[in-house]
Formats: sequence, C-alpha cells, structure tokens
Amino acid sequence: MKVITIGRQFGSGGRRLGKRLAERLGFAYYDREIITAIAEKIALPEDFVEKLLDERPSTFYPVSGGTFHMAFDPHFNLSNAVYAEQAKLIRALAAKENCIIVGRCADYILREEKPLRVFVYADIDRRVARCMANLRPNEVGISEAEMKKKILAEDKARRKYYRFFTGQKWGDISHYDLCLNTAVGTENDWIDFLEKAANNL
Amino acid sequence: MKVITIGRQFGSGGRRLGKRLAERLGFAYYDREIITAIAEKIALPEDFVEKLLDERPSTFYPVSGGTFHMAFDPHFNLSNAVYAEQAKLIRALAAKENCIIVGRCADYILREEKPLRVFVYADIDRRVARCMANLRPNEVGISEAEMKKKILAEDKARRKYYRFFTGQKWGDISHYDLCLNTAVGTENDWIDFLEKAANNL
Repeated sequence: MKVITIGRQFGSGGRRLGKRLAERLGFAYYDREIITAIAEKIALPEDFVEKLLDERPSTFYPVSGGTFHMAFDPHFNLSNAVYAEQAKLIRALAAKENCIIVGRCADYILREEKPLRVFVYADIDRRVARCMANLRPNEVGISEAEMKKKILAEDKARRKYYRFFTGQKWGDISHYDLCLNTAVGTENDWIDFLEKAANNL
Repeated sequence: MKVITIGRQFGSGGRRLGKRLAERLGFAYYDREIITAIAEKIALPEDFVEKLLDERPSTFYPVSGGTFHMAFDPHFNLSNAVYAEQAKLIRALAAKENCIIVGRCADYILREEKPLRVFVYADIDRRVARCMANLRPNEVGISEAEMKKKILAEDKARRKYYRFFTGQKWGDISHYDLCLNTAVGTENDWIDFLEKAANNL
C-alpha cells in the first residue's frame, strides 16, 4: 500500500493539506479518526482505566462518561499500553489501504514500510495569523498573544510526545522526505508536487 | 530581484539541482564561481595574505602561485575579513539579477531580501551511492567506506562553517522554506515545483 505520513507544527496548515491531498489521490485520511477508532477498540474496561490512572496519576484527566478521548490528547503522556494499541491500529490501516496519516508518530511506526514522510511547518507569525483567521468556536475573543502562547504550547506537547515514543527529534530533517514551509508556493502547488511524489512510491 | 539559495548536504545532488533549475528559470547560477570572483577581487596583495596567515596560522594552507583558492575551501575557517568580502559580493549579485546561489551562507546573508531558501539532503547510503556513481578524477579507486568518511567530513565542515558565520544550525528547518530529501520524487518533479515557487516570489 502507498502511505503518506504528515507531521506538522500547530497552525501550519498540515491537516488541511493532508485532507486535500487524500481527496486528490483517492487515499483514505486518518487524523483524529485514529484516536476515535482506538478509543472504541480499547472499549475501556474499568480496571484498565484504573490501572493507567494508578501508573501515571498526574498525566491523565479523570475519565468519565465512557469516553477515553482525553487520554489521547497529545498534551498528556500516553501510557506505553495505549501507544502500542495505537501503533497496532496504524499498522493495520497502512496494510489495508492507501492512506494519509497525520501525526501520531506514524512516520516512525511505519518506518519499515517506507512511507512518504512529510513535515509541514511555518514561521510562528504566519501560524498565528492563520489561526486567528480560522478561529474555532471556543477561541472567539482570543488575543494574538494568547494564540501565540497556545501554538507554542501545542508544538511543545507534540515535540515531547514524538521524542517520548520515538527517541527522535520532532521536525529534524533526517526523519522526513520533505519538509515544507507553508510560506512557500500555494496549496495547489504542494499538492501537485506531493501527488507526483506519491505516484513514485 | 528573485533569488533562490540552496544549502545542501555533500553528495545530495543539490548543486546539480541548482544548475538545472537556473537553466529552467533563466536565472544566473553561482557556486564556486563566487569564490573565483572573490579571489580575483581581493587580488591578493602580499601583506593582506600575510596578515590573514598571522591571524589564524593553523587555518590556512600556504598560499602560492597567486591563487587564494584554498583559503576559501570550507574545510578551513575563513577569516571574518574574507567572509565580509564574500557577503558583499553575494549581496551585489542578488541586487543585480535573478539568481540561484548554492552554499556560502547565502540564505543568511540575504535574509532581508527574503529569498526562497532551499535545503537539499539525503540519507548517507544514497549519497555514497550517488558519489560512487559520479567519481571525480582524483577519486578513482576510492572504497565505499572511504567515500562515506569523506562525505561525513565535508558535512561537518559545512556545518561548522555555517554555524561559525551565522550562529544558526545548518539544516534546521526553521532557516529554510523547503527541505528536500532527494530520495523522493524525480529531479524533474523538484524543478517543476521549485519553478512554481520561484514564480510566486
């Protein structure tokens, strides 16, 4: 199967790029969908959750209402058990169909399968502007300074998450095939180029 | 003027890519030509050379035969005076005509002019294979192990040179607009993409 993994700095447009590229190529697209699928898969036996909470009391929010969603937020360290489930799922998806997987250390998890590994980034000012122009409902009224802080905190969480589970440096060129600063060119240009690269996989 | 700067790991194909892109775009191309031009410009008054040798006795080879060429090899630290000459020339070139400049910290020197900053790289095995397939006359008979050592030494010299004159980390994504692993896609695909990006400059 052909697989493209996309790592991305928060607010760089990597997620949107991944979605549009998946449409262009007719590939499946996985991002937070992966999380949901795993949450359903794990199915949350009470004692499993309790065990996790015992192991890392400070890293998980209390889980309630039968959803484990919060536990997969990259702001928190995931337990190795949960990471292993996620890795298993990512491998199964990559074996099943051509797909694009955004985030989740997929580049590392699938390294034996030689996916096309893309990292998307941009200068912080540009990312702040992008996020301010695309506010989520819960962000209305946020200042530029607050948005910048939020973006940098999210980057930090992703860097830590990646480092923790891969032992590698997030955003270091040696782990990617293409690192794209979204200040350059247009979204259509990137997609044209990535489409060609995907055809060579 | 439109300017593209290309940093590149040794053996990654960045120089060839730069040349072909310059042809496609009708831009001037500068690489070692810059060095030659500076060498001619400095014109080597005896006392200037002596002064340089006095300042950094261990970093320069003895200069003979009226050429200063060796002193600009990235294996040796250049004096600040020579770097300044080089920077002046790069700025003059960028102001004069659309051009592509390979290496020489041009991305940093021209940062105010917002050039398209490209970094070209590849896995070490691929670079060894590429260099073994394109041996220079003085490399005939070299073993793969020797070539690998040579490539890594050259990278190290470039990294040190870049760090010394820019204070930045060579090959760190934050200093580039596009980082291209030449394992991905074909040379024609890269050039198509870079041509579009150049048109948006």
